[in-house]
Amino acid sequence: MTQTLIQQLRSERPLIHNITNAVVMNYTANGLLALGASPIMSNAVQEAGDVARLADGLLLNIGTLNEHQVEAMLEAGKAANEAGVPVVLDPVGVAATSYRAEACRKILSTVNVDVIKGNAGELAFLAGEKVETKGVDSGEASNTDEIALKVSELYETMAVCTGKTDVIGYQGEVFNNDTGHQWLSKVTGSGCLLGAFLTAFLAIEGDRVGNVRAGLYHFGKAAEQAASHPHVSGPGTFVPAFIDALGAEEEAGR
Amino acid sequence: MTQTLIQQLRSERPLIHNITNAVVMNYTANGLLALGASPIMSNAVQEAGDVARLADGLLLNIGTLNEHQVEAMLEAGKAANEAGVPVVLDPVGVAATSYRAEACRKILSTVNVDVIKGNAGELAFLAGEKVETKGVDSGEASNTDEIALKVSELYETMAVCTGKTDVIGYQGEVFNNDTGHQWLSKVTGSGCLLGAFLTAFLAIEGDRVGNVRAGLYHFGKAAEQAASHPHVSGPGTFVPAFIDALGAEEEAGR
Amino acid sequence: MTQTLIQQLRSERPLIHNITNAVVMNYTANGLLALGASPIMSNAVQEAGDVARLADGLLLNIGTLNEHQVEAMLEAGKAANEAGVPVVLDPVGVAATSYRAEACRKILSTVNVDVIKGNAGELAFLAGEKVETKGVDSGEASNTDEIALKVSELYETMAVCTGKTDVIGYQGEVFNNDTGHQWLSKVTGSGCLLGAFLTAFLAIEGDRVGNVRAGLYHFGKAAEQAASHPHVSGPGTFVPAFIDALGAEEEAGR
Repeated sequence: MTQTLIQQLRSERPLIHNITNAVVMNYTANGLLALGASPIMSNAVQEAGDVARLADGLLLNIGTLNEHQVEAMLEAGKAANEAGVPVVLDPVGVAATSYRAEACRKILSTVNVDVIKGNAGELAFLAGEKVETKGVDSGEASNTDEIALKVSELYETMAVCTGKTDVIGYQGEVFNNDTGHQWLSKVTGSGCLLGAFLTAFLAIEGDRVGNVRAGLYHFGKAAEQAASHPHVSGPGTFVPAFIDALGAEEEAGR
Repeated sequence: MTQTLIQQLRSERPLIHNITNAVVMNYTANGLLALGASPIMSNAVQEAGDVARLADGLLLNIGTLNEHQVEAMLEAGKAANEAGVPVVLDPVGVAATSYRAEACRKILSTVNVDVIKGNAGELAFLAGEKVETKGVDSGEASNTDEIALKVSELYETMAVCTGKTDVIGYQGEVFNNDTGHQWLSKVTGSGCLLGAFLTAFLAIEGDRVGNVRAGLYHFGKAAEQAASHPHVSGPGTFVPAFIDALGAEEEAGR
Repeated sequence: MTQTLIQQLRSERPLIHNITNAVVMNYTANGLLALGASPIMSNAVQEAGDVARLADGLLLNIGTLNEHQVEAMLEAGKAANEAGVPVVLDPVGVAATSYRAEACRKILSTVNVDVIKGNAGELAFLAGEKVETKGVDSGEASNTDEIALKVSELYETMAVCTGKTDVIGYQGEVFNNDTGHQWLSKVTGSGCLLGAFLTAFLAIEGDRVGNVRAGLYHFGKAAEQAASHPHVSGPGTFVPAFIDALGAEEEAGR
């Protein structure tokens, strides 16, 4: 089923509007191109609404937030909602500073978000739990099912909690994904790229949970393939092989 | 002749001022270094004029525009014109939003631009033709000769229309380039890097059309070499090999 | 001794707050992750102080400065000083424009900086010497010992002057480091990544000179290892292998 969805995605070539952080823009764009989607990055409030209306999916990622970007996110989010364009929020490091927490609060109270994707620390914070987190990285948590369900309920959205096992919480149900590789956590922006990925999978027709599950599965499988490549010996050589693997699926999917 | 020009470029080591988009800065800088040029990235209006005067070439790329960057482009462009520094404009996604179109209009009415480089959709838009374009990517067009000539005439500049065959329109004449590889279109910012490349080739003495043709040829040849490398299996592994190939020419050129 | 420090660094996993240039953010984050540190990038004045207080080290790099970033640097620097968090300044291209020079002056008169790391041209400028420099790259200088000592004395800090031989000037003494590889100078942001590296080494307990020397040594050794890898044939393929080598030391260090 994943292969059918990927074929569909590649034939539709959805345009994904990324308002994302400066660290991961290049990696995100190359990952989306390899997947078969068409990325556009735009942070300017003057065109944020126009681009979002044009797009098939919108990603809001707060990794290197500034006040202009928050405005652009609100404009783009409202336009996407009006146009029926799906919206994914990646609340990078939301527990780290009150500035990020406040920005998320504003976004979540202004924009209908279809998916919130974060690590356990970020989602636990959004669920109102006390979290010990430092910076933007996160350890594993034991109660990710509970966290995902709580975020899903609180914000009336789908919640995707990434980790060794990814957990989807949606309408009282929980779904898991076990594909992936530890090197993803050694490459900056892998989680951010995954957020863009899920946006692309939401941009195509189909059952939303099914599409998100397919996105998680495909992402993790490509990572596994890349990590097992004989020329890959660490997170540095992993990256080009991972991009290739995302594209190589293209052949397999045909 | 290309090799002689590359040798010359490497001995002059021109300083290229890039006011470019956030997605491609790293790739652009590494590509210029591999070529043998010296990149400087600067977006601040406070120093844009100073940097442009210091430079041997100026690239204006509107891929992730904001209002401060537009101001910086106008300052840098005026300074470059005064100092006789060649200017290249890359109107990324100009047909996508009125904000980008207006920014290009401002730049083209304020700055004398030596080369406009874009894909068929972007140049067709600048030529005043109706275009169906979505985002920043572009398909192939059949009338690229006409488009390049029209842009060249309208803006009194050289027009470079990229595609499977690149077309240069200049003073009523058309020139083609056929080197290249399809994976360039799967790597974000390859067109943007090409814009920086052409800026570097314009920065050295010589016939302008000849220099631009040499830049296009060299860029495409390096892509072909990289794509045929036994360790390259997709757009991910293509990138490092492409950067190497741009530098490997260095040896060959000596 | 270097291995012990690296083991310590990896077990402490220091959080490094990078206010750095847009060209090198991705490379810097991946390099720090490979080393075993935890990077956070944040440029917003609204959270700069909060992030710096949370962090174990702060890097200020002026490579693509703008007015908002200068403000964020001053806020973060003051917060870091109050919290006892070490601060490293990388004055990228300071001699190129008066805007950069003025920003450095402001930073150095407001923030107590533990290390200033730059190339010979940048440090010579800070030392008040006449320098011929163009852009952000630098040639070799003959009097780097003198320059490093003068910067160290003038700004009451440790000065690290990078080059074929790196020179540390501190409290009237000079220390050298000879590891490294020429391809580092063909990869944009290698010096910037080194600045982040030294910040991470300063973030762990120990003699400051010893820690900085270990950082320089490890960085250069990893470059040598990467350059000698059979699949590396230029600066493009060097980068992934270099990131791997920074991580591979992890195994060796255990």
